[in-house]
Amino acid sequence: MQIGAQDRIQSIERGFAVLLVFDAERRNPSLIEIAKATQLSRPAVRRILLTLQHLGYVRPTGGSHWELTPRVLTIGQHFTTSSAVVAVSEPHMSRLVEETQESASLSAMDGSDVVYLARVPAKHVLNINATAGTRVSAHATSMGRVLLAAQPPEFVEQYLAEHGLRPLTRHTVTNPDQFRNTLARVRERGWSLVSEEREIGLIAASAPIRNHTGQVIAALSSSTSTGRMSPDRVERDLVPVLVRIANEISKELGA
Amino acid sequence: MQIGAQDRIQSIERGFAVLLVFDAERRNPSLIEIAKATQLSRPAVRRILLTLQHLGYVRPTGGSHWELTPRVLTIGQHFTTSSAVVAVSEPHMSRLVEETQESASLSAMDGSDVVYLARVPAKHVLNINATAGTRVSAHATSMGRVLLAAQPPEFVEQYLAEHGLRPLTRHTVTNPDQFRNTLARVRERGWSLVSEEREIGLIAASAPIRNHTGQVIAALSSSTSTGRMSPDRVERDLVPVLVRIANEISKELGA
Repeated sequence: MQIGAQDRIQSIERGFAVLLVFDAERRNPSLIEIAKATQLSRPAVRRILLTLQHLGYVRPTGGSHWELTPRVLTIGQHFTTSSAVVAVSEPHMSRLVEETQESASLSAMDGSDVVYLARVPAKHVLNINATAGTRVSAHATSMGRVLLAAQPPEFVEQYLAEHGLRPLTRHTVTNPDQFRNTLARVRERGWSLVSEEREIGLIAASAPIRNHTGQVIAALSSSTSTGRMSPDRVERDLVPVLVRIANEISKELGA
Repeated sequence: MQIGAQDRIQSIERGFAVLLVFDAERRNPSLIEIAKATQLSRPAVRRILLTLQHLGYVRPTGGSHWELTPRVLTIGQHFTTSSAVVAVSEPHMSRLVEETQESASLSAMDGSDVVYLARVPAKHVLNINATAGTRVSAHATSMGRVLLAAQPPEFVEQYLAEHGLRPLTRHTVTNPDQFRNTLARVRERGWSLVSEEREIGLIAASAPIRNHTGQVIAALSSSTSTGRMSPDRVERDLVPVLVRIANEISKELGA
């Protein structure tokens, strides 16, 4: 649904625009830099910063520069504590890590990206560097394929038209027809296994989590390294545990 | 600094108020419930929800009910990626976990609470259930004591007056004079050890992290269970590693 501009509140949009200016490249921007990045006037940015400061989300660091405060983290906590799928999945994810000794992740679609909702790392040196909130492109990951496979064909076609199949390694599937067949196979088998298409050495499997209406709302994943497990062994030893636990989560959600 | 109401933008404050209504008790509130919780009119809440929906942070779930989307998590990611102390500390925290086989946490003051900035769990069944963004009260935790010990005396007195020393277990220090002495000892030794004052069975030690001006900006902690380690062993084996790694982080931050 498109929401008309007359129904929206511009200053809220501007408030978030200012908050999102802060990132790894702009940790400590000046008012002038923020005005430039958001294309807002300096007086407008100043009032927004003072409002965000009053709310506790930003603070001045001297010389008209600003930084985010840790209170920003508590906004994300509201998602984590309010999400039924995260609450229900977390103990099951710990069980998955215990049974497999490999890292577990929970993720969902946000627009055309995949977002990690939760992660339980295994005790290995080689682990994906991902925390709740990390975004990855959908096509080259097992979780993305499980989530895309559950979308209507138009969604997948729009994804292909807008994003294409950018190769992340030399193994990434980049042919649209081959990709459509891969998604069909994911739907058929009920799980996805992706080896070294996102990163050399990384291998992961995912299975869908369904809500009470049967809709796929998240993907449960288990990831390992090619040094520890071959794709065959992941399919034989890891996938059955993963699918079983994903089904148990779905059941608990009323599927 | 107090920021005058005339300098703030009310609709931004209202936007965040609506976003923060969603939590474990209100996962899926109706427009009416949100209006009640925020004391805003229904038409005002409706426009805020449509704005937040346009930004991708909330979505309708039918019957005039709403839920947060995972995009909310990406707001917190902006803090994590923009925070120098988190970026610098993370590899050191992994090293701390490797050397000690115990969980590592990084935290900072937010108002009078302590907020976890990052956490690296150890491979044990018994682990604190905390993720980045989790808030805890300062007085009964080793990280809170390290952070309070670095504050001016007026801050501590205000904390005592406003929050008191709520007992969380039968071991929690609840006498203000004893508490002030404990903080003095933390300042003297440069670390804090708290055993079973927050939760029976939980024992943790913390050391301060300083920035280039020498100011304490975060606490590095290592936590274990009384079943695995006695307080004496934590002091002998864990604290020296913790203090060394905290100092290395401070050095990297220019202290």
